[in-house]
Amino acid sequence: MNNKLIELKEILNKANFYKHAINILYFDVETIAPKDALEDENNTMNYFSNELFKIINNDHVNNLVIDLNKEKDNLDYYDKLLIEKLYESYSKNKNITPEFDLKRNQIYSKSYINWLKAKEAKDYNLFKDSFNDVINIQREEINLRDNKFLNVYDNLLNDCEKGVLQEDLDKFFNDLKVGLIDLINKIKSSKHIIRDDFLNRKVAIYKQEQFSKYLLELNGFNLNRGVLSTTEHPFTSEISRYDSRVTTHYFEDNVLSNIYSVIHEGGHAIFMQNEPEEDHNHFINDYITNGMHESVSRFYENVIGRSKEYTHLIYPKFIEVFDEFKDITEQELYEAINIVKPSLIRTEADEVTYGLHIIIRYEMERMISNDEITLDEVPAKWNELYYKYLGVTPKDDSEGVLQDVHWSGGFGYFPSYALGNAYNAMYVKKMKEDIDFNNCILNGDFKTINNWMINNIFKDANHLTPKEWIKNITNNSLNAKDFLDYLYKKYSDIYKF
Amino acid sequence: MNNKLIELKEILNKANFYKHAINILYFDVETIAPKDALEDENNTMNYFSNELFKIINNDHVNNLVIDLNKEKDNLDYYDKLLIEKLYESYSKNKNITPEFDLKRNQIYSKSYINWLKAKEAKDYNLFKDSFNDVINIQREEINLRDNKFLNVYDNLLNDCEKGVLQEDLDKFFNDLKVGLIDLINKIKSSKHIIRDDFLNRKVAIYKQEQFSKYLLELNGFNLNRGVLSTTEHPFTSEISRYDSRVTTHYFEDNVLSNIYSVIHEGGHAIFMQNEPEEDHNHFINDYITNGMHESVSRFYENVIGRSKEYTHLIYPKFIEVFDEFKDITEQELYEAINIVKPSLIRTEADEVTYGLHIIIRYEMERMISNDEITLDEVPAKWNELYYKYLGVTPKDDSEGVLQDVHWSGGFGYFPSYALGNAYNAMYVKKMKEDIDFNNCILNGDFKTINNWMINNIFKDANHLTPKEWIKNITNNSLNAKDFLDYLYKKYSDIYKF
Repeated sequence: MNNKLIELKEILNKANFYKHAINILYFDVETIAPKDALEDENNTMNYFSNELFKIINNDHVNNLVIDLNKEKDNLDYYDKLLIEKLYESYSKNKNITPEFDLKRNQIYSKSYINWLKAKEAKDYNLFKDSFNDVINIQREEINLRDNKFLNVYDNLLNDCEKGVLQEDLDKFFNDLKVGLIDLINKIKSSKHIIRDDFLNRKVAIYKQEQFSKYLLELNGFNLNRGVLSTTEHPFTSEISRYDSRVTTHYFEDNVLSNIYSVIHEGGHAIFMQNEPEEDHNHFINDYITNGMHESVSRFYENVIGRSKEYTHLIYPKFIEVFDEFKDITEQELYEAINIVKPSLIRTEADEVTYGLHIIIRYEMERMISNDEITLDEVPAKWNELYYKYLGVTPKDDSEGVLQDVHWSGGFGYFPSYALGNAYNAMYVKKMKEDIDFNNCILNGDFKTINNWMINNIFKDANHLTPKEWIKNITNNSLNAKDFLDYLYKKYSDIYKF
Repeated sequence: MNNKLIELKEILNKANFYKHAINILYFDVETIAPKDALEDENNTMNYFSNELFKIINNDHVNNLVIDLNKEKDNLDYYDKLLIEKLYESYSKNKNITPEFDLKRNQIYSKSYINWLKAKEAKDYNLFKDSFNDVINIQREEINLRDNKFLNVYDNLLNDCEKGVLQEDLDKFFNDLKVGLIDLINKIKSSKHIIRDDFLNRKVAIYKQEQFSKYLLELNGFNLNRGVLSTTEHPFTSEISRYDSRVTTHYFEDNVLSNIYSVIHEGGHAIFMQNEPEEDHNHFINDYITNGMHESVSRFYENVIGRSKEYTHLIYPKFIEVFDEFKDITEQELYEAINIVKPSLIRTEADEVTYGLHIIIRYEMERMISNDEITLDEVPAKWNELYYKYLGVTPKDDSEGVLQDVHWSGGFGYFPSYALGNAYNAMYVKKMKEDIDFNNCILNGDFKTINNWMINNIFKDANHLTPKEWIKNITNNSLNAKDFLDYLYKKYSDIYKF
């Protein structure tokens, strides 16, 4: 093998030790680290993140990458792919100094802590300065790039979902918005009444824990290669090759919140657990985009998890573990988990109104990035858009602009959720041509479903851009239509119109 | 300040980042890391342990320490102490190469994994080779030292409890053995019957979790600076200055096991949480011996936790949380938690027979270290000593020689448990002269007790050798008498002789 490649891979091996330790530290901070230890632990995490940055970003490694990029056509498939990805990363990072890297990490850590404090105090003003720091450091970072899009926000979007820019999203979200508002109006006019009075019955946490494990295993999550923990804001983390961790948050008076968190995060983990071994062996396992990932998590959460068939499958266990619900019929449960009701909190939203929560965030990010509103105007604009699109108004910042952790880490992620819905609606159409999807769910045959995902969705997600990937699978380009069709079919049945 | 000292402290600051990360990795491995991830995570931990070794052990740092040691009398109290401790560590480690350090870490990791496997399979033979590797690497390490005790085991003991060698322990354990056997015989002859039929009643884990938190907070554990997690073999870890973590293991059919684990480990954590800030500021916070630490954990577990006063204090909450026990009186509970019954498992043993479990381990370690028995003979010798001292025989290796994790990390720790009992019996005599100890417990006034501990026991534990420390507190030297007096007084009352 090429000597430069051997040397480069030794460096990437070393980098993997740092990534592993940083992932564990991050997971620890977000799950069990005690309050008074957070500052020290963030400092330690930032120290190692900075060391990692220095291992990968220096003249020696840059020269290896530049040289190997010149001869990439002589490399085999995986090595060529790796060099292309590293060259792209080099191009983005070459003007970023270790000092800048440390500064940005410190800003993100501080911003996260201030977000937590602000949310607890229900006061956006406690977060505003950090928010400003985060927005500025993202801008500074982009300014340091040689090749960049003219518009700041396009760069942030492109970092999250390569090739998907404001132009694409404006069209996509516009189609989506028109379709959703039409559908919501149809649902509003429906005479069908769905009972949801029982959803807030109190359920002990330990029962919810038991049910969460049942769901994860049912769906195909491998507990030898992952764990379930608790956190403030649920996430999934790929700690290392054989270690993908799901987190959730239990509420005694909201049993569904945990259930759909666990199915959603479990979906991310199933994706991680089924990335090809070869991708890990060739250091190209870190290139799945957020949109691709959300397409999978939201496939498990919604397309499967909120389906009639899945409700039928889990209903017996549901009333066994949660005997508080034994007077509720399967049909009542199915309708309640799909009730459409404009509300304040994104993560608790139904499938139909969910898209509007994302559109609000996208519009906010675009306005802030393009200096159309100031940070002082953010909470009022947030509340204005919530009233405009959903007809609801937060009573404080905690259930308004501070509800999500994302902005403490910058802009660009939110559109991924909506893209995820669009992608999976597109590929589920294809899946249904190949396997008897509804019957698989009814019979709890997740092996067939997950195998289809492995062979069609997971296989080359690390290798392709989202545009290439969805085209390869569906022979089609990003659109809102398939998702709207899916919603229309499902909700016209539930709401009988 | 001295320039060399400034430079040295910068290096120690960097080392602290590594220690922090390694502690988090270790904690993660022992608590939640999934099975298939253990090998990778151990590799990562070993990588960073080795990096840490290289940061502290190299010519440059050695020269700083040697130079500063020459001028130590010009340094202030804390800096002089630090240099003395670093010079001692330099003297021990100067011939150990980074390669040797990596090799030994790999041996310990592998040995831990093999111990787990062997214990699960109840088969000592699956552990024997690793056990041999561990014993050999400990010997090799000692051979590399310039200044050492002639006898291998004396070095291992001295590493754990500075200045306490076989000569001291032979006398101490002999006195202890004579006293314990005499006391056990008196208890055996007692006509008083203690009821313990209820101890194996099934109790849901979530109730045990709730009770564990109650106990930790009652005793003075600060949950803002620590957490409670679960593990196979309970331990406590000082992760960082403001982060001391307790672990436990829940058994549905043994509610007491968790209760006394939690009080014991919580005792370690209370010690850690109350080390002087100045010790941390001056990098001398890592020098408390195992014996000192066990004196504190066993003080909370036994002297407090198994007392009549503590039983009275927690009884109302106990029967409230564990309604399975509401027919049991306070006196019945007190007697049951103090029932004396020779048994197989050290961690489940009562206060009286516990010492014999330690004596067996001490005698085994001494025989193996001094080549008086081979590793093949270990299980038989173990079973022989259990029969001789306790009259019981393990039905397999899992409840015999494999029950404890310690030997997967080498020899030297076990005597600390018995030393801990001896130390705390000595200093509780002193404590009772200063505060109304029994009344404090009865009233749940742990502030007064913990303050006494802070001002007398914790204050300079990092500064002194165990011999200096116990002499300073009690004006006396290590002896078994005070502990035997304590046992005799307590158990003659319970067993009415």
